[in-house]
Amino acid sequence: MFDPNRLIIFDTTLRDGEQSPGASMTKDEKVRIARQLERLRVDVIEAGFAAASPGDFEAIRAIASVVRESTICSLSRANDRDIARAAEALMPAERKRIHTFLATSPLHMKVKLRMEPEQVLEQAKLAVRFARNHTDDIEFSPEDGSRSDEDFLCRVLEAVIAEGATTINFPDTVGYATPEVYGETIRRLRERVPNSDKAIWSVHCHNDLGLAVANSLAGVAIGGARQIECTINGLGERAGNTALEEVVMALRTRADYYKLTLGIDTTQIVPASKMVSQITGFAVQPNKAVVGANAFAHASGIHQDGILKARETYEIMRAEDVGWHANKIVLGKLSGRNAFKARLQELGIELESEAEVNAAFARFKELADRKSEIFDEDIMALVSAEDHAQEGEYFRFVSLSQRSETGELPHARVVFQIDGKEFACEGSGDGPVDATVNAIESEAKTGADLILFSINAISGGTQSQGEVTMRLSRQGRIVNGVGADPDIVVASAKAYLSGLNKLHSKVEKAHPQL
Amino acid sequence: MFDPNRLIIFDTTLRDGEQSPGASMTKDEKVRIARQLERLRVDVIEAGFAAASPGDFEAIRAIASVVRESTICSLSRANDRDIARAAEALMPAERKRIHTFLATSPLHMKVKLRMEPEQVLEQAKLAVRFARNHTDDIEFSPEDGSRSDEDFLCRVLEAVIAEGATTINFPDTVGYATPEVYGETIRRLRERVPNSDKAIWSVHCHNDLGLAVANSLAGVAIGGARQIECTINGLGERAGNTALEEVVMALRTRADYYKLTLGIDTTQIVPASKMVSQITGFAVQPNKAVVGANAFAHASGIHQDGILKARETYEIMRAEDVGWHANKIVLGKLSGRNAFKARLQELGIELESEAEVNAAFARFKELADRKSEIFDEDIMALVSAEDHAQEGEYFRFVSLSQRSETGELPHARVVFQIDGKEFACEGSGDGPVDATVNAIESEAKTGADLILFSINAISGGTQSQGEVTMRLSRQGRIVNGVGADPDIVVASAKAYLSGLNKLHSKVEKAHPQL
Repeated sequence: MFDPNRLIIFDTTLRDGEQSPGASMTKDEKVRIARQLERLRVDVIEAGFAAASPGDFEAIRAIASVVRESTICSLSRANDRDIARAAEALMPAERKRIHTFLATSPLHMKVKLRMEPEQVLEQAKLAVRFARNHTDDIEFSPEDGSRSDEDFLCRVLEAVIAEGATTINFPDTVGYATPEVYGETIRRLRERVPNSDKAIWSVHCHNDLGLAVANSLAGVAIGGARQIECTINGLGERAGNTALEEVVMALRTRADYYKLTLGIDTTQIVPASKMVSQITGFAVQPNKAVVGANAFAHASGIHQDGILKARETYEIMRAEDVGWHANKIVLGKLSGRNAFKARLQELGIELESEAEVNAAFARFKELADRKSEIFDEDIMALVSAEDHAQEGEYFRFVSLSQRSETGELPHARVVFQIDGKEFACEGSGDGPVDATVNAIESEAKTGADLILFSINAISGGTQSQGEVTMRLSRQGRIVNGVGADPDIVVASAKAYLSGLNKLHSKVEKAHPQL
Repeated sequence: MFDPNRLIIFDTTLRDGEQSPGASMTKDEKVRIARQLERLRVDVIEAGFAAASPGDFEAIRAIASVVRESTICSLSRANDRDIARAAEALMPAERKRIHTFLATSPLHMKVKLRMEPEQVLEQAKLAVRFARNHTDDIEFSPEDGSRSDEDFLCRVLEAVIAEGATTINFPDTVGYATPEVYGETIRRLRERVPNSDKAIWSVHCHNDLGLAVANSLAGVAIGGARQIECTINGLGERAGNTALEEVVMALRTRADYYKLTLGIDTTQIVPASKMVSQITGFAVQPNKAVVGANAFAHASGIHQDGILKARETYEIMRAEDVGWHANKIVLGKLSGRNAFKARLQELGIELESEAEVNAAFARFKELADRKSEIFDEDIMALVSAEDHAQEGEYFRFVSLSQRSETGELPHARVVFQIDGKEFACEGSGDGPVDATVNAIESEAKTGADLILFSINAISGGTQSQGEVTMRLSRQGRIVNGVGADPDIVVASAKAYLSGLNKLHSKVEKAHPQL
């Protein structure tokens, strides 16, 4: 029925990754990431949870409309309304999957669902049966499966496979599993469920104890699972999910041991990592495996000893295999619209319309006036900023002047729009960024709390644009505002306003726990 | 001979961690980290490689003089000169270990050592025998052990144990291992080496494929190793070493499974993580397990559903168990010297002399003039800055004024000292930070390249100090400059000058590959 050595990579950056506090994305951002995931050749893209919010629904629909190669998936609770909503969002997709879930642990069934086990069994069957009306590709996850009674779990899984579930996912929701036990549990479940060979088994791990990659690999090697659910940069709640880049490169580099085939184009890994980091504002630490700035940087000592010439001696992967390349100067002030458009295409950025290309080109010219060398990363940030601008901004940056001098209080003057009306506000503070935020708040009066603040340079060199992330919190909601500019104070003002825009758009949605 | 369930935590942040490009630390910084490692109750602190450089030697000696609880270890090649140097550096230590290594793989023996296997065997024996003159606590690592002929490796290990090696370390130098195979290899080696029970076996893993924690745990659970070598924040070359915080919390949280006892005081984990991040300038990403800002942050949805009241449902560790605590306002402008000194003690910061306390207090007052609320993190940054100032700075920040305004070129004026002589320089650039760097370079003319730039806020809130990391490269050397200030442009100037100071101090040293 299935190629026994083919491993399916199921990316859930846009669903589980987005549940990470502060990582919420706009529809356009999700589409951009989905296109990159398609270039990366992930088999399945979990694009969201259609019934969770109108925004999720629209994003899934947009992704289903443009992505042709990957299967598009929507999460869905195990009820007809949710499933119908998922099916509707997935309508335009070439290949579609409905991923439905239902809790099977005694605690969840009793407290959350208020259902008897037999009712849960029945509802799981009905849900899969209903989903079959919309697609042949159905995934079922027993929520809190690892704390479920195993006999009952086997009955549920057998029943949903009999109804037509083609993928069975066994999540380690709280990141509590250890590799051997997790792998053995999946092996035992597959042995005990009589029709287990009619479905592909899947792993979904969290990294709270630093074991997500190892647990996923054990689920595959020991348990016989043939799908791994993962996210770019290991994005996800708390310590995140299994990092796609790590699990894929472990399987590739140790193909001699795991003996599995993957469809992934690994040269798209680093571009995907940079895009997700740029959009969400979640920085990647230098010593992060595969995609960290140091992952392929060696201390000088090694090369100095001059004895071990073969790079293979200390490198098990090649930087170029995962898409690291020298940062190229691609465009400058004199580059024309066609050169810009060609570069967008080379970077795999497909803008929807000529109007969008024009808007991006205008921003490019504006940037080129202030920054002599434009790198690929700058162009990606530019398009990212373009996405933000399209949100129909409530708060909008116009201009800024600021000054600071040792011994004096830093001062800023910010001109910005609130709902189309322009304000010029002044503020002072401990530093120019604090002064800028105080200036904005003197008029906006949002009362948002800044809980994290970071700046990363987009490319090397002192002329680099700074990319600022400001994580704001208000009334229990957390958002990440991002802004990029060669002037980091301006970038900070943009990031703060971007955060306020996100707080202004009242998106509330359900957060399933898988 | 040994408690069979007691696991030894061997921290190598100061040796293998420091080999990470850009992570080099001063003696004072190393002493501060060593003291924190002692508070964390790590069993063994690998403080450096005494023969690698005079700086390493001095740092080990200083650490050996002040740390009383942990064993202090120096790395050493397998020759008398290196071992004597290690022993000399360790002289003041209450408990001392010499960690000697020698390559055992055909490639390394032939190409690097130019020795026959029998000569290597003999040299390993002689090295351990010589080290025994200085201490009873001797660790031996077969460099490139995983690519060595197993029969030969067994002969070497048996011989060094017979000579008195008490710890045998089996490194996965290139991060290529998979958990089961790594664990099985150690188990097999322990079975085949007749006197293996006379030594404690140790694991040392790298995280290139995201498997360092899992490999370490497999080495323990399958292989029977009873020492784990690790670093704070997983610092180390490329993707780094096993992260202490992850492997410790895996063993603690899953004590039901691993059944091992540890001496670690886990509440010191987050302070240790922050200190190492602050000193090295290596940021910790939000979704890093245990010590990332998100590790214990849940998306609002979970709490909103209001059904699952028990925190245990989704949390397997408690934030307070690893040292996360609410950021407290501890001191302000009116706080006196005694309050400041008391707070230093509560934070576990022990300054060497009253003069140092006075210098730190002066900086505190200066900061309190500009920043209304002083957090614990600010005090830690302050003491960190104090350390830098004591280095006998060649480049020294004095004052700065800068301004930027939309439509005009940002401009900066920096006053700083070069070798005691004051200069006032002006510069302009793409942003105020670029202008500042240009101003400094207009006089300093170092030609250093900026290859990474990042800013993290030290505490929450817009009044937070910014902590800037600038990674500079010149003639193949890479250093991280760090600077902190409420004004991020000032922090950037300090970071740049700190980086120039590091480039100015010509430290060259060997980088062993374990």
